[in-house]
Amino acid sequence: MQTLIDQIQPLNAQALKSALERQDQLTKPPKSLGKLEALGVRLAGILGTEKPEIQNPVAIVCAGDHGVCEEGVSAFPASVTPLMVLNFLAEGAAVNAIARTVGAKVQVINAGVNADLPDHPALVNTPVRRGTRNLRKESALTREEAEKALLLGAEVATQAIQQGAGILVPGEMGIGNTTPAAAITARMLNLSPDLVTGRGTGISDEGLTHKVQVIKEALNRNQSHAEDPLGVLADLGGLEIAAMTGVMLAGAAHRVPVVIDGFIAGSAALIAAALSPLSRDYFFASHQSVEIGHVKQLSHLGLEPLLNLDMRLGEGTGGVLCVPILQAAASVLKNMATFAEAGIG
Amino acid sequence: MQTLIDQIQPLNAQALKSALERQDQLTKPPKSLGKLEALGVRLAGILGTEKPEIQNPVAIVCAGDHGVCEEGVSAFPASVTPLMVLNFLAEGAAVNAIARTVGAKVQVINAGVNADLPDHPALVNTPVRRGTRNLRKESALTREEAEKALLLGAEVATQAIQQGAGILVPGEMGIGNTTPAAAITARMLNLSPDLVTGRGTGISDEGLTHKVQVIKEALNRNQSHAEDPLGVLADLGGLEIAAMTGVMLAGAAHRVPVVIDGFIAGSAALIAAALSPLSRDYFFASHQSVEIGHVKQLSHLGLEPLLNLDMRLGEGTGGVLCVPILQAAASVLKNMATFAEAGIG
Repeated sequence: MQTLIDQIQPLNAQALKSALERQDQLTKPPKSLGKLEALGVRLAGILGTEKPEIQNPVAIVCAGDHGVCEEGVSAFPASVTPLMVLNFLAEGAAVNAIARTVGAKVQVINAGVNADLPDHPALVNTPVRRGTRNLRKESALTREEAEKALLLGAEVATQAIQQGAGILVPGEMGIGNTTPAAAITARMLNLSPDLVTGRGTGISDEGLTHKVQVIKEALNRNQSHAEDPLGVLADLGGLEIAAMTGVMLAGAAHRVPVVIDGFIAGSAALIAAALSPLSRDYFFASHQSVEIGHVKQLSHLGLEPLLNLDMRLGEGTGGVLCVPILQAAASVLKNMATFAEAGIG
Repeated sequence: MQTLIDQIQPLNAQALKSALERQDQLTKPPKSLGKLEALGVRLAGILGTEKPEIQNPVAIVCAGDHGVCEEGVSAFPASVTPLMVLNFLAEGAAVNAIARTVGAKVQVINAGVNADLPDHPALVNTPVRRGTRNLRKESALTREEAEKALLLGAEVATQAIQQGAGILVPGEMGIGNTTPAAAITARMLNLSPDLVTGRGTGISDEGLTHKVQVIKEALNRNQSHAEDPLGVLADLGGLEIAAMTGVMLAGAAHRVPVVIDGFIAGSAALIAAALSPLSRDYFFASHQSVEIGHVKQLSHLGLEPLLNLDMRLGEGTGGVLCVPILQAAASVLKNMATFAEAGIG
């Protein structure tokens, strides 16, 4: 893991400078493309060229189950996780429907689903274990398991990049995973769980109170500290969250932009950014999730969401939806004429 | 024109109902795709099927010059209009760069540029006249000229639809055109010009005060009333605004969704919606423009913008950028599995 982290370097300062200057030479009133201009400049810094281009988007959907489901923290039963993985493979899920319109490939990682899954060309089927332990009662994962899941995500991402992926969207599926995500967020940001815990797929008021209580007990039980992000990841868990963290770090290590989807992805990004503060420069926040902890995650990460459409589905849906916006931001720098080239002014 | 208006029919109520029901049967927590779900339902109502699909986006960029430029209302000289048309044709403008990433075709209409333009396959080069008259001093257009420009836009849009266009993005180019757009908005919404007049491509405080004064004088001069939208269009002008109005009405008439770009497009949409209140159901607002009058236009039209990225460029850039969001909203309904199909629940 340390090798991966050490690979992550700052953005290319020269490309950032050239791209910033180029924005004001392009055939448009200065700053008239608003936030799209800064996005393009950052993409230039990532790709090391004032004319960035983003092709071959890949969504990497990481799946895992959660021992804490036995506490009744989700509106859906844990058995839905493997069924949804099959749905991804059959291209019937929301992330598939949206990926299709933006030309993104969907790759699935079984990081720790609590069921046997069939072989499939779009599935990396090497789970670290069958679901996490119940984080209310004990550490969800050992450090070794957490690191293994993280490196699994990193490996799949690295392969995708070697095969041409130009932008990564880590997504997730794991019934119950807003509970570890909220626990991680509370610990990493040192916030009370009730400030970062939402309704997930749709629990009642009573269910929400219970969920907050479960997270409080998990945080009281364990001894992990924000200064030890891998320890937090292990203790509060999420095999798919660990795998997403690995995807994010691998993107940053290979200088490929990473779109951070919603609240679960945000919890993985908190771990990634704590492991490598430089990694944040490679991250783009797709949308403002309805989950209440999401805005706190993004504020901590220094990221501003591109969309605000009241989405709260996960899977990478918001991330995939933002890919064309980032492609457009890059295309402005790459494909627009300057005033001089157009003979204007 | 009346024939065109009479063609516009309400959305398909049965498709709206089926699509709404279908949203809750798809493999996602109910409402978890937020505003994307309502967008999909409206697209179903437009296309008359619970499984809508949007292909072949076409941006129709309407260009025209403005007599009011002699009053010094713009940061750029009027000579930039024809140069930017050439830039569109050479695919060097922002709308081309963004259209490229979303797979949209860019078609240009010379509705009234004050210069000779060369023949080009992407240019419909049949201007109604060489620019408008100065709206501060006299009516910008006669009723006949306004209607001719409107029908020109409608004809080009109809041809694009007959050739397969599945969604239209009317865009514009016309140095000085935030002045007629603000004048139209003030008149149609019965608002004081200072509430709807912004800096356009970037004028100074002093320039803004002068621009408001020009618009006040235009409104004091003329006798047009909001109840006579063609009269307002003629009196305050904009050959490209008239052509965009025609594109919008033709989209609605042929049951093709229309993406309303920024402030200039918004002024055309006000005219279109006044000519045919039913047409609004076919319109989607792309982004919240920085121009102060835009929020008032959208509020009047009952449209909520999809993006808020501080854009203020025009050309249809924001509209084109939103095409993938609408395609995704349709794809969710068309391509997602239901819980029953996925064997869940």
